[in-house]
Amino acid sequence: MRDSYSLGEIAAFLGAELRGDADARVTGINTLQNAGPDQLAFLANEKYVSQLDCCQAAAVIVAAKHLTGAPAFAGAALVLDNPYLGYARISQWFDRGPKPLAGIHPSAVIAESAKLGADVAIAANVVVEADAVIAEGCSLGAGVYIGARSQIGAGSCISANVSIYHDVVIGTNATVHSGSVIGADGFGFAPDGAGSWQKIYQIGGVVIGDNVEIGACTTVDRGALDDTRIGNGVIIDNHVQIAHNVVIGDNCALAAYVGISGSSSLGKNCILAGDACLVGHVHVCDNVTVTARATVTKSISKPGSYSSGTPMMTTREWRKNAVRMSQLDSMARRIKELEKD
Amino acid sequence: MRDSYSLGEIAAFLGAELRGDADARVTGINTLQNAGPDQLAFLANEKYVSQLDCCQAAAVIVAAKHLTGAPAFAGAALVLDNPYLGYARISQWFDRGPKPLAGIHPSAVIAESAKLGADVAIAANVVVEADAVIAEGCSLGAGVYIGARSQIGAGSCISANVSIYHDVVIGTNATVHSGSVIGADGFGFAPDGAGSWQKIYQIGGVVIGDNVEIGACTTVDRGALDDTRIGNGVIIDNHVQIAHNVVIGDNCALAAYVGISGSSSLGKNCILAGDACLVGHVHVCDNVTVTARATVTKSISKPGSYSSGTPMMTTREWRKNAVRMSQLDSMARRIKELEKD
Amino acid sequence: MRDSYSLGEIAAFLGAELRGDADARVTGINTLQNAGPDQLAFLANEKYVSQLDCCQAAAVIVAAKHLTGAPAFAGAALVLDNPYLGYARISQWFDRGPKPLAGIHPSAVIAESAKLGADVAIAANVVVEADAVIAEGCSLGAGVYIGARSQIGAGSCISANVSIYHDVVIGTNATVHSGSVIGADGFGFAPDGAGSWQKIYQIGGVVIGDNVEIGACTTVDRGALDDTRIGNGVIIDNHVQIAHNVVIGDNCALAAYVGISGSSSLGKNCILAGDACLVGHVHVCDNVTVTARATVTKSISKPGSYSSGTPMMTTREWRKNAVRMSQLDSMARRIKELEKD
Repeated sequence: MRDSYSLGEIAAFLGAELRGDADARVTGINTLQNAGPDQLAFLANEKYVSQLDCCQAAAVIVAAKHLTGAPAFAGAALVLDNPYLGYARISQWFDRGPKPLAGIHPSAVIAESAKLGADVAIAANVVVEADAVIAEGCSLGAGVYIGARSQIGAGSCISANVSIYHDVVIGTNATVHSGSVIGADGFGFAPDGAGSWQKIYQIGGVVIGDNVEIGACTTVDRGALDDTRIGNGVIIDNHVQIAHNVVIGDNCALAAYVGISGSSSLGKNCILAGDACLVGHVHVCDNVTVTARATVTKSISKPGSYSSGTPMMTTREWRKNAVRMSQLDSMARRIKELEKD
Repeated sequence: MRDSYSLGEIAAFLGAELRGDADARVTGINTLQNAGPDQLAFLANEKYVSQLDCCQAAAVIVAAKHLTGAPAFAGAALVLDNPYLGYARISQWFDRGPKPLAGIHPSAVIAESAKLGADVAIAANVVVEADAVIAEGCSLGAGVYIGARSQIGAGSCISANVSIYHDVVIGTNATVHSGSVIGADGFGFAPDGAGSWQKIYQIGGVVIGDNVEIGACTTVDRGALDDTRIGNGVIIDNHVQIAHNVVIGDNCALAAYVGISGSSSLGKNCILAGDACLVGHVHVCDNVTVTARATVTKSISKPGSYSSGTPMMTTREWRKNAVRMSQLDSMARRIKELEKD
Repeated sequence: MRDSYSLGEIAAFLGAELRGDADARVTGINTLQNAGPDQLAFLANEKYVSQLDCCQAAAVIVAAKHLTGAPAFAGAALVLDNPYLGYARISQWFDRGPKPLAGIHPSAVIAESAKLGADVAIAANVVVEADAVIAEGCSLGAGVYIGARSQIGAGSCISANVSIYHDVVIGTNATVHSGSVIGADGFGFAPDGAGSWQKIYQIGGVVIGDNVEIGACTTVDRGALDDTRIGNGVIIDNHVQIAHNVVIGDNCALAAYVGISGSSSLGKNCILAGDACLVGHVHVCDNVTVTARATVTKSISKPGSYSSGTPMMTTREWRKNAVRMSQLDSMARRIKELEKD
């Protein structure tokens, strides 16, 4: 990031109407409550509107409706219909993350047959195997492993200690966070008839689209025969499991611990909240939301929101109620009996 | 893999009856639907039998009963009682995974006192500590860490960026996928009486049998005093947690996110579906199946299938029903009252 | 550890009353059942009192009340009010874990501007970026990555293949186990109004207090604007997820798979059992226990124990009862009808 930005250039980038001094400069971005007099803030959530009053920010990204009447904000305003999106778009300007310099660290071990695009940044102890392709502008963090014939699209950023197996294709502008593993074997075994398990070799690969973000300690398994596929614009949090032959449509969002079992598929624009899961071989259509910790036990063909799970109680109350859960069928039958009488 | 195989040699390996030309060659294996005219396919699941009709594969692994009557398959047949097992066994012939070449990469850091067997393949940036033993034919992927005195049995394959602590014993022919951690401290702490936690040093090790597969980002903790133990032929998926002093019997299968809490044990041949878990200090006998997401809250002494959890509904329906879960005890009492009247 | 210790020095360290020969020596520590004649044992749990009778240990850490009457222990006794804490405190003396020697492995890549304290032990293939601070007595295991400007407090031990991003502060005497990732981006995205997700750059850092233990394959995300914060003395198991802007009070204990969603907070001295989770933006007060797999769906302002979830049944019983869960609201209404009559 630069040391500071003028409100004028921020307004221009965001397409915001600026009410205030275009030459005033800000050095950071913060919440309404914490922003200092040289920082930018934003009002994205109606419930914080009262904080405008004593907000000390140089300028606030705000919707027009919050500029009239009380509470009033004393500083400059960058007026946008969608201030939250404005905050998201400008946030990159204030990112302190060090940008890796192009170049190849001498300790990196790159197979001769691997192809490296222009301006790649390859950190210490990276290993790139035979016939892999690292396209223009990619950065590979320390200790990253890229297996044979795998391809990383232009502008992608693979963080330290990520492991990518052979025959994995990742599109452009991907982000993969540390500890994640892409292309490990799917969990495929056949009972051998004598009590043991016969491994099914996982011959498929993984194909990931453009503009995908994958969190830390997340796993995407390679396919058994066909590929495991993730569409464009998909965002995936930490500790997620994508099993073999799963297909995920464009722009899905998967929060932490989401698990998609083998051969299941998600349509486009689905949102799976934390620890939601799909059992194997089910299909979820476009535009479905699954709430936190819900288990999708069968296919969903109608857009909407789906849930399962039990509500929180004190442990004392829960014990009394939980014991009744194994009596539910009996309770239902007894109600029916009573209704007959 | 070789470029192609003859149907004759495949039939001989599988012990299958070949109906067709023994000299015909296949270059790959695929599903009934996707197999091309130079590929092998298989019919493992009754529900795909209709695909035989237009399957273009050179040959299909199939049970005898599916060769008579319609639909009819035009190509060669490899007849087996258990086609799924046949597919599993032959799958290795078509695996594209690069086989690591024996040798020690110059960047590997191997303690002088470590013992390396014949034909080991040790990749870049591997670290092997004092008195560790890497037996014949093992392969250690890039960035693997092997702690002091740990032993990896012959023919085992440890993928990139796996961390194995000190005093861990792994049997022959193990596979451990990237990101997994074996032998980290069990989670043992005693309240110190002043509001803090006193660490209990974890002095035990980990002992893993032969022919075990461990997925990616899975953890197996070392024991507090005794060892954590995993039997022979156990298969473990991604994101699994095996806590300290757990004992797992031979040939158990643990799907993704399965968690086994401290000092619990599984008998032989148990199958735990995704995200099933055992609380601490319970014992599950041989031949138990636990369905997806079920919580084993007490010991199980009778083989069979066990479950817990709630079914999926639309969020609207779920909200109405979930609120009743905290009224269950009251509902049960009221039914009893009504029955008295 | 030394080869052996005298009972006298152990008693002095623990502040225990020694009944027996102060010069007798022990070489290890074990359970009552397994301890040999040169080992120390302990009686921490009333239910094992009958094992005292035939315990072969040289000495037992035990409460006074268990020394009188039957069963009687033949060996020496180290008498303490809290034998479990005594065991925990002495366990370090018997830890076989190799202590890393101070020094910097020649393969480590340390930025010139990084500051290293006295007696640090930096293993092979470690990478430390610009302006990072590794304080006195720290040990960094093989393949550890420390991002720019991050600080690791004195005496901390970071195990092999841990990834720590930029601008992360960890206090003194921390332990972080392999595969864990601290400071990866929080999961923050805004819908861009055209069906895609706009990344919100995560500008905050992570601040972790003193004496914190973090297990294997655990993730702590950096904050969106403010920092993610973990207090002093917090203990965290494997596969835990701490999302952006979470705040965790001193001395909390988080078992495996605990997930704390964005912007939620825990007071002091909370205990979250395995796979318990908090949804986003909730606050849990001091001294709350959440039982295994419970979901905290709203803020908790009263100390105590909280639960959710369903009990285990045979799958056959469960199927009959589970189907009734989607009829609960109807059942409740029908009971009300019956009561009216």
